[in-house]
Formats: sequence, C-alpha cells, structure tokens
Amino acid sequence: MALLQPRRIPVRTAAMLAYHTPILTEDLRALGIPAPWTFGLADRVRFGELDALGHVNNTAYLRWFESFRLPYLKARQVTDYGPGAPRLVLRSAAAEYKVEMGMDLDYVVVGRARAYRRTSFTMEFAVYTLDPAQVTATGEAVVVLLNRDAPGRFPIPEAGIAAFRDLDGAVAEG
Amino acid sequence: MALLQPRRIPVRTAAMLAYHTPILTEDLRALGIPAPWTFGLADRVRFGELDALGHVNNTAYLRWFESFRLPYLKARQVTDYGPGAPRLVLRSAAAEYKVEMGMDLDYVVVGRARAYRRTSFTMEFAVYTLDPAQVTATGEAVVVLLNRDAPGRFPIPEAGIAAFRDLDGAVAEG
Amino acid sequence: MALLQPRRIPVRTAAMLAYHTPILTEDLRALGIPAPWTFGLADRVRFGELDALGHVNNTAYLRWFESFRLPYLKARQVTDYGPGAPRLVLRSAAAEYKVEMGMDLDYVVVGRARAYRRTSFTMEFAVYTLDPAQVTATGEAVVVLLNRDAPGRFPIPEAGIAAFRDLDGAVAEG
Amino acid sequence: MALLQPRRIPVRTAAMLAYHTPILTEDLRALGIPAPWTFGLADRVRFGELDALGHVNNTAYLRWFESFRLPYLKARQVTDYGPGAPRLVLRSAAAEYKVEMGMDLDYVVVGRARAYRRTSFTMEFAVYTLDPAQVTATGEAVVVLLNRDAPGRFPIPEAGIAAFRDLDGAVAEG
Repeated sequence: MALLQPRRIPVRTAAMLAYHTPILTEDLRALGIPAPWTFGLADRVRFGELDALGHVNNTAYLRWFESFRLPYLKARQVTDYGPGAPRLVLRSAAAEYKVEMGMDLDYVVVGRARAYRRTSFTMEFAVYTLDPAQVTATGEAVVVLLNRDAPGRFPIPEAGIAAFRDLDGAVAEG
Repeated sequence: MALLQPRRIPVRTAAMLAYHTPILTEDLRALGIPAPWTFGLADRVRFGELDALGHVNNTAYLRWFESFRLPYLKARQVTDYGPGAPRLVLRSAAAEYKVEMGMDLDYVVVGRARAYRRTSFTMEFAVYTLDPAQVTATGEAVVVLLNRDAPGRFPIPEAGIAAFRDLDGAVAEG
Repeated sequence: MALLQPRRIPVRTAAMLAYHTPILTEDLRALGIPAPWTFGLADRVRFGELDALGHVNNTAYLRWFESFRLPYLKARQVTDYGPGAPRLVLRSAAAEYKVEMGMDLDYVVVGRARAYRRTSFTMEFAVYTLDPAQVTATGEAVVVLLNRDAPGRFPIPEAGIAAFRDLDGAVAEG
Repeated sequence: MALLQPRRIPVRTAAMLAYHTPILTEDLRALGIPAPWTFGLADRVRFGELDALGHVNNTAYLRWFESFRLPYLKARQVTDYGPGAPRLVLRSAAAEYKVEMGMDLDYVVVGRARAYRRTSFTMEFAVYTLDPAQVTATGEAVVVLLNRDAPGRFPIPEAGIAAFRDLDGAVAEG
C-alpha cells in the first residue's frame, strides 16, 4: 500500500509496558527482573484465562510458556519455522504455581535454555508480575527436534547451540 | 513500594502498536479504521488460537469480543464490576468470518453499542488487521443486565445510556 | 493385537447416556428431543468450559457446534475429510443463550442442514439438557466448501445434497 | 418430572466405552490398564484440543488431569465441593508426552494419590489409548488444601486419607 505520508501510530508513553515485543536484558533489569533472564515477553491476563474460581487456570501458564517459546527459539536461531526447519516436539512440561493471579494483571514471561544435548534441550521459565517484580509461577520444558518428513532426530543447529550457550549460559549435557 | 528513582520502563518507539490499551477515535483513524468506531483494543494472534487447519479458530473471535466488552463497558459507565454492579449476561453472540487470520498477526478489535432498551443493549464488533486496515471479521452481541442477588432485570445506568448515545451514536429501541 | 478371547468392556446399564456416539431420531425422541432433529451427540460440561462467573462460557457452545459438525458432515457424506475432500470454511456462526449451564451437566447437541446452495449450506443447532428435555441454547452456522489446493468453490457432493434433503428436510436456496 | 413409564434411553452395546463415568479396577484391567490404577475416566479427543500441528496440544493433557481430579477427589471423600469444603489449590503440575495423539481418539485418564502430608497430597496420572492399552502421557500434580474463608491450611479429612491409603496405596510423607 502506497502511503503519501507516514501513518500516525498511537503513541505510547514511556510508562507503558511493551507487550508482545521481546524485552531484553537491560529492560528486564529495569523492571526488576534479575539474572539469569535475558528474554521476556509481556502480556495481560484475559477473562478467558480465569477459571470458575476466578483465578488464572493452571493450563494458561503452559499456554504462556508455549507463546514464549515460539519467538524465543526463532531469536536463538534454533528454527526459522520454515519448510526446512525441524519439527519441535514437547517431551515434557511442568509448572509450579506460587501466587494466584487475577483478571487484567500485567505479567512478563521470561525463559531460557538451561541445558542442551545434540537433539534436545531443557528450558526453564518464570512468570513475573510487576511493581514490584514478583515471581508468580515457574516452569520447565524439554523440547526435542525431529526430522520433518522422516523418522529420526534433528540436531540443534550450531547457531542455536552458540546462542543458548553465549546468551543464556546453557550447559552441554550427556 | 518506595522507589528512590523512577523505574526505567522498556521504551516503545512511536511505530509500535498500543496493545491492551484503549485506542480512541483519533488514533483509530490514524490506523485507517473508519467511523463509527470510537474504541479499539489491539492484540496479537497466539499459537493457541489456531486450530488444526492453521487459522484462527472461529471461537477465538468470540473470546476477542468478550475481552473487548469488559473494558468497553467500564469505560462507558455501564458497570464498574463492583459488588453493587449488575450481572451482565450474554443473550446472543454472532460472528461473520471474512478473511482467514494466521499466527502472530496484529489486530484491533473495535466495538460499540448500536442500540439499547431499558435493561439490554446490542453491540456490534469488527476485527481489523493493519497496513492497510482490513476487516477480517464482524460480530454482534446482545447483553442483558440482571440483578446480582435477586430475580429480575437491572436498568442500564443513566450514565451508560448517555455514553452509548453520545459517544457511539446508539439509538433507543422498543 | 491378537486376543484369545473377547475383551471385556465396562458395561453400561441402559440408564446411561451414549456420549460421543451419534444419537439418531428414535433415540432422540425417547430423550424428549422433538422433530426436526435427527442427529445428536451427547457430552458433559467440563470444568474448563466454565468461566469466572461459574457458568458455561459463551465460546464453549461454538466449540460444541464445531464438534458436532465434524461427524455430522461425514455421516451426511458431505466430506470424508480425506485428501480429495473440500476445505470446509465457516462463513458465520451464531448462538442464542437461553438457560445458563453449570458444571457436570449432561447435554445433547443436535443439528441439521436447513438450507443449501451449490457450494454452501446453512446449519442450525440446539443444545438440550435432559429430564426433562430443555433447550439451553440454539445456534446457526454457514459453511462454505472451497477447493483444497486451488482458488474457487467446491460443489456440495450429490450424496450430501440428497442426505441434507432427505434426512434433514433441508431446502434448496438461491 | 412425573413419567408414566420409564424413559427409553439410547442403549449402548457392551462394546462401547463408558465415557464420563468412573471406570474402576476390574474394568480398567479388562481394558488392559494395569495396577496401580484403580480409577479412570474415558473421553474422546476433540477438534478444539488439536493445535496447528494437528496433534493434541500440550495444555489439553493438563485439562484432562483437572477434569479427572474433580470426581476422583469427591469419590475419595477429600471434598464434597460444598460450602464447608476446603479450597483446593494446585501447587504444581507436570506432564510427560510419550505418544502424539490425534483427532477422535478414545482415551482413558487414570490417576491416584501417591503420597500425602497433613494438608497436601501428590497425585500421579496416566493417559491410555486402547486396543491395545498404551500410555501416551503421564503426569503429576501437588494439591494443597486451604481454608475457604480464612488464611491457613486445611487438613485432609480422615476419610480422604483412609481412601488414599486403602484404595490407592498412597504413603504418608513428611
């Protein structure tokens, strides 16, 4: 679409949280979220995520970890989700619930690869509410890379290993 | 929480969309979203909203309309969701699907009261993707106000009627 | 798996509702569900379908209609969901909510094609609770058949048209 | 509702799986589901539980475990979900995914308390597909009992402890 002039976009003040946009180390620290976290995504609790008890349902956190993994793994060059990319399969997922969350709360999901093998890796996650930063839940997941159209495993790309190791301090296992 | 200095918040450039924050008339027009819309909320398609065909599932749009209604009805002074507020019950909901939507798309849900009676009102909705603004779905819902702890209907507060009429051009019915 | 003897299956008494299995005309009438309904599927409300107000959320009904459509359209020979089958796309969906539903309620979704054109058809739905049979919601949907791997529409197969007409009394439109 | 004659109910043949109805030890064994499982609930995969990759989404399994817990904990007399009942809060949840599951598959969720303390207990779960019985996922959850309207913990009722121990072989911890 040709535009004669730049589109005017709703301006956000600096006091607004950057939803759906990677929040990197320096900005995480400014929000009070400590090391080792280097990558975060902010969102807000929706009505549909509450259960009949009025709190965020236990399954919603796994959705949040899933929504985190997709851009994170692209940023870490593990996959570009293209036709030649591996199929990423969840081997396990877990959450610990520490503080109940309610409607309309802003939160930041942070996550990182903690350990890797040749064709799989272990991630850990935390959910933070803000002002002050407080952990409401943590989580873990093991992801396996499979060949897309054939049996067998797919090795984590070198660039992904390097990013896990250099940016997130992940350690080699096995 | 006492802070010695202002907290540094991740700064958004003017090119970012204001998710989860009411987008009002002037900013909607800047995004290419025309009259009669005066209230919008932006969000981004999540992986969990796709179905096995890879497109946003038909039920997700009703979730989006629901997530829109809550802050909209507060802004229009129909309810403060407090203990003395009416119980808002959905009488009907409908969606028309015009363009399939995929992963990670930004969208703006807009909505307004189109008509009102003493204890119920009709809303209409649209979903826009941007650059250029394009309607991907429309919707409608009829909401009824009930007494919270007693049988019978609850009249729409005067301030709500005025807001529906003056801000959204809603018309009296029945 | 070779079995020396028939597997013993948990036996249901005649007093149990046949969940997830098409319930046809005679059995629908026995449950108190009247004409024109000729095809039903029973299920039970789950905790995860309740919202924070403790009632079945408005979006759940559209899920139920969707879960109904899939086996119904196979039974009516509109599609076998195979590689040569059309792509079925929802043009619109709607629900009217008549009675609030709670946890663990048994219900039967009934539906039928009401009208058809060359490449699209209109369905209507109802949700019944039992003892006595009571309509808690109704719905409607327009489904369009598209070519799977090419632009353009796909005509409803002759066998599907015949089934819509002969079994459900659907009428030709347009 | 007064009925002059017994209502005729859709009859199931013995070959049908008893969905939504507790399946106890003997019937579990008949399905090929081994000790230590003594309580199961059968259901069928729905379209809405698949994700964009066409398999049951990782979060659906936690929904299934949740749907299992509710009737199981009532059967074990831990709670009657009445006004005097404790508030049951999930401390943690986990799943291991072993075999991908697709549309329309029948499955049985089994679960049991494995260990208990004064005010909390640990459950384990498995998901089985049938013919032959095969574990597709396992899970674990820690549940804490809280006072409903006051701070502090609520002790597991004696009858619940006895049922956990005598029916499921749960062991005391801590």
